[in-house]
Amino acid sequence: MKHNRIHNFNAGPAALPLPVLEEIQASFLNFKGSGMSITEISHRSKWFDDVINDAVERTRRLLKINDQYQVLFLQGGASLQFAMIPMNLLAPGKSADYVNTGTWSTNAIKEAKIQGKPIKVVASSEDKNFSYIPKNIPFNADAVYAHITSNNTIKGTQWAEFPDTGRVPIVSDMSSDFMSRPIPMEKFGLVYAGAQKNIGPAGVCLVIIHNDLLELTPADLPTMLKYTTHSTKNSMYNTPPCFAIYTIQLVMKWLEETIGGLDKMAALNQAKADLLYNYMDSTGFYKGTAQADSRSQMNVTFRLPNEDLEKKFVAEATAAGFGGLKGHRSVGGCRASIYNATDINSIQTLVDFMKQFAAKNG
Amino acid sequence: MKHNRIHNFNAGPAALPLPVLEEIQASFLNFKGSGMSITEISHRSKWFDDVINDAVERTRRLLKINDQYQVLFLQGGASLQFAMIPMNLLAPGKSADYVNTGTWSTNAIKEAKIQGKPIKVVASSEDKNFSYIPKNIPFNADAVYAHITSNNTIKGTQWAEFPDTGRVPIVSDMSSDFMSRPIPMEKFGLVYAGAQKNIGPAGVCLVIIHNDLLELTPADLPTMLKYTTHSTKNSMYNTPPCFAIYTIQLVMKWLEETIGGLDKMAALNQAKADLLYNYMDSTGFYKGTAQADSRSQMNVTFRLPNEDLEKKFVAEATAAGFGGLKGHRSVGGCRASIYNATDINSIQTLVDFMKQFAAKNG
Repeated sequence: MKHNRIHNFNAGPAALPLPVLEEIQASFLNFKGSGMSITEISHRSKWFDDVINDAVERTRRLLKINDQYQVLFLQGGASLQFAMIPMNLLAPGKSADYVNTGTWSTNAIKEAKIQGKPIKVVASSEDKNFSYIPKNIPFNADAVYAHITSNNTIKGTQWAEFPDTGRVPIVSDMSSDFMSRPIPMEKFGLVYAGAQKNIGPAGVCLVIIHNDLLELTPADLPTMLKYTTHSTKNSMYNTPPCFAIYTIQLVMKWLEETIGGLDKMAALNQAKADLLYNYMDSTGFYKGTAQADSRSQMNVTFRLPNEDLEKKFVAEATAAGFGGLKGHRSVGGCRASIYNATDINSIQTLVDFMKQFAAKNG
Repeated sequence: MKHNRIHNFNAGPAALPLPVLEEIQASFLNFKGSGMSITEISHRSKWFDDVINDAVERTRRLLKINDQYQVLFLQGGASLQFAMIPMNLLAPGKSADYVNTGTWSTNAIKEAKIQGKPIKVVASSEDKNFSYIPKNIPFNADAVYAHITSNNTIKGTQWAEFPDTGRVPIVSDMSSDFMSRPIPMEKFGLVYAGAQKNIGPAGVCLVIIHNDLLELTPADLPTMLKYTTHSTKNSMYNTPPCFAIYTIQLVMKWLEETIGGLDKMAALNQAKADLLYNYMDSTGFYKGTAQADSRSQMNVTFRLPNEDLEKKFVAEATAAGFGGLKGHRSVGGCRASIYNATDINSIQTLVDFMKQFAAKNG
């Protein structure tokens, strides 16, 4: 690979498009003729205004979102959003629905409960180790929002279609499939995504919030924990994570101008996932852990016949130039994360390696 | 200047040492032979463990801090610390003392009050537009902590000596003078610093907290807002801002190995500040806004005879390759921020320019 780079299947932080990295590198000592690095320019400068405004505008165009939504760049990752969402949106006596589809949903539920919010877990796939996405969920019509995790990085499941919640807006953690496909924004009240899977480096969380939900923010919260603080200041109430936002800008540009938008990105991601799942299903050696109808196009989780073979597989794959194939420490097994920036050629190369490994060890 | 870089006097984000930027640039597509960018490696990898552990160890050595303190890398900037400090340290009925020396102190006080904490403002320099550091302050012996802002970026003042608070630990916002000089850590219970002035890019806040204060953290806070969450996980409860922490590691290495430690850094900073203040004091044209005994060695704030001349000064300085000389929008005037990474040669060049400007316009 160019620059001796590996085939990166990391779950996050994860692969970024090589042209994005090359542009950052080339401009790193002198950004746009400013005579400064992107890490040294003022967030109150024209240079940074152009960066953050372009990142917002590209996000809006890619997702086709209207001016009823605000696009924010916040710190603290999805984990801080787990707390901020109920803190901002659930006034005393108000409830929300949560669907539990794995580790991150569980954490989102936990953070609402810590605050004493009377939320309801309306569905869960915990009975089968979170290997599927629940159907026919009894959402409550009086919920302020219905929270889902659109893609479950650790368990390898994904909502193929979003549920019918009636008039209740969906709030979704999209950290691991944000910008991997078009989404019907009109169903959503709030979407959030830690950048470090599909859109940038760690250190920034993109939040898209509808004005109707912004109006729910209580006045007496700590300033940094109120969505309105950030929405009224274009994400610059205090110094934002400038470098991470700049990287997002370049990734959005790559999505628009090189890939050609989210329909094309989705088609590429479908082809990538099909290549890997179809091969796995053709063997008795590699077994997917998610139910077929709930499989993630981003995180392909699988087992080998035994743990010794899994260890050997990961070790030999690492030596052969494949990174990040070990499953999450909480579940074991193997996982190939194939986000937007992972090229289909890397997946074909992995499939070829998997064939050889199965032939030798099957 | 090399790479057509300017003389950067930004208040933050601010100048970083050129060797640090060059090392980041050189390794940006392939970090330490990993075949990945620093933005693409897992925070659970050996590569990143080495980065964060080295950043912590160098911080400990530079500040000579013992194992009773924890070094944390948090998100949300100093502004989130304004809220987290009273949230974590002030149990019901407990109070703390605050000294108000400017914009950021005012915000710290505001965030404690939003939470209904019965804090006491024991001194303020608001009577003279925050142009001095108060003396002989009546600190309360029963306060949980005494909060100060060690350097006031906007007003250009700095605590030359830290106050005697008896047995009460000092909590200090050191965002704009952290690592600019040695500090008597034994006086401090908690020190925090947004990175984007002296130690790195925006997007990470370094927090040093004594174990005695960690023990005060209530159990029922949102997980991300508890210091203990981060102290028990080496700042990796969730994905940390890896790139920003990596930059800090390199800045700390530069401080130790190129500068030679904080005594030497302090001597350099003293010489830099003396050069600029001594020149200003020799003229009737440039007038420092801070009282002489309270002047900051980091942010030199000054006025010219009138606002038109100030505008002209900033415009001509910008054209001549000096950046960031406009005062903060809330106070006007001019400001030269001369953090660690600003070379004394840049200051000499600025003084030469100031002389010429005064001769032409005085």
